[in-house]
Amino acid sequence: MANTISERELAFLLYEFLDTDSLLQRERYVSHSREVFDATLETARQLAEDLMAPHLHEADENEPKFVEGQAKLIAPTHVAWKAVAETGFLSAHWNEDEGGLQLPEVVLRAAMSAFYAANAGTASYAMLTIGASNLLRSFGSDALKARYLAPMGDGRFAGTMALTEPSQGSALGDIRTSAVAQPDGSYRLSGQKMFISGGDQDMTENIVHMVLARIQGAPAGVKGISLFLVPKWLPGEGDALGERNDVALAGLLHKMGWRNTTSTVLSFGEQGGAVGWLVGREHQGLAHMFQMMNEARIGVGVMSASIAWRGFSESLNYARERPQGRLPSCKDPLSPQVKLVEHADVRRLLLAQKAYAEGSLALCLYACSLFEDQHTHPDVAAREDARQLLDVLTPVVKSWSARYGAAANDMAIQVLGGAGYTRDYPLEQLYRDQRLNMIHEGAEAIHGIDLLSRKVVMEQGAGLRQFMDTVRRDVQRAADAGLRQEAAALGTALDHLQEVSIALTALQRSEPDLALANATVYLDAFGRVTLAWIWLRQGLVATQALTGAGTEAANHYHGKLQAMRYFFQWELPQTEAQWTLLARVDRCAFDMHDAWFV
Amino acid sequence: MANTISERELAFLLYEFLDTDSLLQRERYVSHSREVFDATLETARQLAEDLMAPHLHEADENEPKFVEGQAKLIAPTHVAWKAVAETGFLSAHWNEDEGGLQLPEVVLRAAMSAFYAANAGTASYAMLTIGASNLLRSFGSDALKARYLAPMGDGRFAGTMALTEPSQGSALGDIRTSAVAQPDGSYRLSGQKMFISGGDQDMTENIVHMVLARIQGAPAGVKGISLFLVPKWLPGEGDALGERNDVALAGLLHKMGWRNTTSTVLSFGEQGGAVGWLVGREHQGLAHMFQMMNEARIGVGVMSASIAWRGFSESLNYARERPQGRLPSCKDPLSPQVKLVEHADVRRLLLAQKAYAEGSLALCLYACSLFEDQHTHPDVAAREDARQLLDVLTPVVKSWSARYGAAANDMAIQVLGGAGYTRDYPLEQLYRDQRLNMIHEGAEAIHGIDLLSRKVVMEQGAGLRQFMDTVRRDVQRAADAGLRQEAAALGTALDHLQEVSIALTALQRSEPDLALANATVYLDAFGRVTLAWIWLRQGLVATQALTGAGTEAANHYHGKLQAMRYFFQWELPQTEAQWTLLARVDRCAFDMHDAWFV
Repeated sequence: MANTISERELAFLLYEFLDTDSLLQRERYVSHSREVFDATLETARQLAEDLMAPHLHEADENEPKFVEGQAKLIAPTHVAWKAVAETGFLSAHWNEDEGGLQLPEVVLRAAMSAFYAANAGTASYAMLTIGASNLLRSFGSDALKARYLAPMGDGRFAGTMALTEPSQGSALGDIRTSAVAQPDGSYRLSGQKMFISGGDQDMTENIVHMVLARIQGAPAGVKGISLFLVPKWLPGEGDALGERNDVALAGLLHKMGWRNTTSTVLSFGEQGGAVGWLVGREHQGLAHMFQMMNEARIGVGVMSASIAWRGFSESLNYARERPQGRLPSCKDPLSPQVKLVEHADVRRLLLAQKAYAEGSLALCLYACSLFEDQHTHPDVAAREDARQLLDVLTPVVKSWSARYGAAANDMAIQVLGGAGYTRDYPLEQLYRDQRLNMIHEGAEAIHGIDLLSRKVVMEQGAGLRQFMDTVRRDVQRAADAGLRQEAAALGTALDHLQEVSIALTALQRSEPDLALANATVYLDAFGRVTLAWIWLRQGLVATQALTGAGTEAANHYHGKLQAMRYFFQWELPQTEAQWTLLARVDRCAFDMHDAWFV
Repeated sequence: MANTISERELAFLLYEFLDTDSLLQRERYVSHSREVFDATLETARQLAEDLMAPHLHEADENEPKFVEGQAKLIAPTHVAWKAVAETGFLSAHWNEDEGGLQLPEVVLRAAMSAFYAANAGTASYAMLTIGASNLLRSFGSDALKARYLAPMGDGRFAGTMALTEPSQGSALGDIRTSAVAQPDGSYRLSGQKMFISGGDQDMTENIVHMVLARIQGAPAGVKGISLFLVPKWLPGEGDALGERNDVALAGLLHKMGWRNTTSTVLSFGEQGGAVGWLVGREHQGLAHMFQMMNEARIGVGVMSASIAWRGFSESLNYARERPQGRLPSCKDPLSPQVKLVEHADVRRLLLAQKAYAEGSLALCLYACSLFEDQHTHPDVAAREDARQLLDVLTPVVKSWSARYGAAANDMAIQVLGGAGYTRDYPLEQLYRDQRLNMIHEGAEAIHGIDLLSRKVVMEQGAGLRQFMDTVRRDVQRAADAGLRQEAAALGTALDHLQEVSIALTALQRSEPDLALANATVYLDAFGRVTLAWIWLRQGLVATQALTGAGTEAANHYHGKLQAMRYFFQWELPQTEAQWTLLARVDRCAFDMHDAWFV
């Protein structure tokens, strides 16, 4: 079926590309089995097909309404939410003693890719709630956990992350929402938050906002921000809900796509102060929130890849069925029309989509496996390695998947031509939905600067070394397995990346503004190298598995090898112009004067 | 103002980049003056600001409705149409003896860019009507011209081009609409047309469809297609309208953007046959229609550039006003926020938009000046040169402007971040509107094949030689004027283009399918070379004009030079990987098997 990631692809990524089976050796997963993992994927696929995909278009045409101070969603969204909750996806990765199933992170995220492919606007409520509850699990007091975790796990409560404010945008250091300590240990919050996804809806009994604010008298900038839990409804007697908290839905933002996820303006404290409780330590809020942000960034990567894969699948189906035109060599106008897929340029559009969508999904699930290793690997040093590598890769996971996911969805429209531009096919909506992914969880420029000014230099460059060493090991393995051309090309690209990284790192000490002026190009080139590596790894698996494979499996492996070749012939060579530009520290944009624009 | 192309930019393109003044020497324009040209541009700008820009959003939110067999548009569209007609834009370029003003093509198109920037969905009715009436002027019988030209010139009638059918898409040779000759010299047409822009509306008394169909017994393929004029309402007594013709609005297509232009399914002859009259010669319909298609392709280029320029202008205004964050070198969280435009990556996004939008607008107006030369240049050889060069450039004008216009509008959203993704700003609509331009008037792949298999080989490569010679002359001029680095880079790129063109032309004789497999890449590389040349020409003008320029003018010239540098440092170098791929005749997409995709 076209609506979700294919079963074979997910199995390839989890069990051949990644060694998910080996997790069963770890203490946390001894009571699991591959059957449990597969059943989880199958449950998600069914749920996505039956309860999410059918209202993709309906939700787009009937975006949430602001009715009497509350956001109202169409009914199928409620049904899907309930099903996600009842099948246990909101708490599946929790420990058993928290009420969870101890499902590995990588299996949960692979399962959720089905939701995103089917209907990202509906599925994101689950992603946000999981992120908020993870934050609570990591940093919340026992009292807060006792009150809020269970209903966030069973879907009675949903969660949000409330960072952005109208006057500050991407610069978190400038947030102004204030928090005043109360004698009872709680705080009263006042301020306005904007672009808060899921900030209001009518599906759950309560909404748990994880809010960044400044405690009165806190230092300026990012070092004076604290994290608070602020519920929509205050606690009442026992487990019951009490009064409405002083959090008001000030407005809904009307988006180009992704419409079924409310994007809200929330006013805290217009009636004297919203009641909130500190999560974690004073002034450490941003550091704590980065856990949720990093998780959300990988989540956005998975979403991007999934929406790209959906577009790939839809346009492939169309190209296989639609007869149109003839090959250039055919001069007989009476000969039958050929299918679209027989035109070389249509195959290019499909192959590029495959390279982008499957490449980024593979990268995202690899990142999830690093998250897994960071937390459950038996070897402490391996945990540390995984953490460092994941830190470096996170900006790429988020940004590359979003940008090339958008490129893939653009190509999907092009395969259909005029039909793809109409609302009779889902391609135009996927294109609109996907566009958000380059913006939320940090716009692309933010990730370029994060990568070049933090991730690459942190811990004396340990993360970058991790990356280089890991890739070089795979380059050697690929060369040994006969993928010599690709191995050599990637080796050369790595050399360039290293040289450029060293030069730009050094320049940051003397001229940080200039050194970071082309950080977005650096991010893109880093991403191409990363994806070439991910494709080389997939090609390596396919090469080794081809021997003795049946026809159907062999077709899949041949497709992997062809997509790998595409990436190495079409995408990686484009880094050459980028290395030149970066090595020269190009000043075109840097030197441009405002007054010169028009 | 942000809603239309700036006055200064159009003046630069017409009078400095192009030598539009010199047209006044030509016989057709002796009674004109620069004041007339400027007054025309000013009228268009006012009309665009006052009557088109204000309903851009309203028209998007209230797309045409299908009411009792007719498409109904919102009222402001009617008002704008009437104003365009009353100010004479529909016939301004006609000869005086046709009732026109003999306005040069390039001035008309420059004026219309204001309409497209303000509201493409409303403006396209004018473009279509002008195209249809031009077709009638070129190939129509005196009787048809006598009846239809005047009301198409004064806006009582509108025009369309009706090519595409549901089962044939881009392959025009497969159209099936039939035409049966009648004793009175007319024809009866039957068949269904799809994606017909402006195919129905309620603004004009009549609609004149220019329809491709096959006369009974005609040869198969493109050589059996004829062109017909089929009005919505048949002629009555004298100049009055008579009966409704057998053309029915079968449905409206619901598009992602560009919503105010109806996209229709039209049924011809469901009641026995739609009355139509042959335009031009039997079986020559496609050749005739190519006049309108080529005109429309340049029109789509101008539209793309104009929408890109609008996005550039809107995002520039936002970036100049919105404070956000600090430069990387600033470590003081108490220092004031800087404006977005002070961030280097925002300037990159603006500079790239400038390079794309102004570059493609310059290219499109250059193409219009070639059209002008082809028809009014006093020297016959120069007319022929202009025709050949225009033929080669048309696929680039259309496709490059559309693709990089879309890239520009994508960047405009990114400058605004989350705000750009909301419907509170026009950027998201521009992005949706722009996306059509890569599809209509020939999807990108069609133009790649057109360029490589027809335009480059036609007349023993005369068009390509024209292009090469013209560019090499400008390279020499630029080198002489001190732009040595850019001149050298363009010279090298030209060498590559020539080598690749020769090799792929030769390969087409033995393996046409393989030789054309990467035609879209060839088109993109050809486009980059073309735009580098266009920027070099603009840079040359700016270099020469800088001496003695006042501050404001100097700022504009500095901006041109910086955009030129950007194009040569960031865009042209990306052709290097493309030449390698083309020279190798990369087989990745060509060799991909359908069964390998998933």
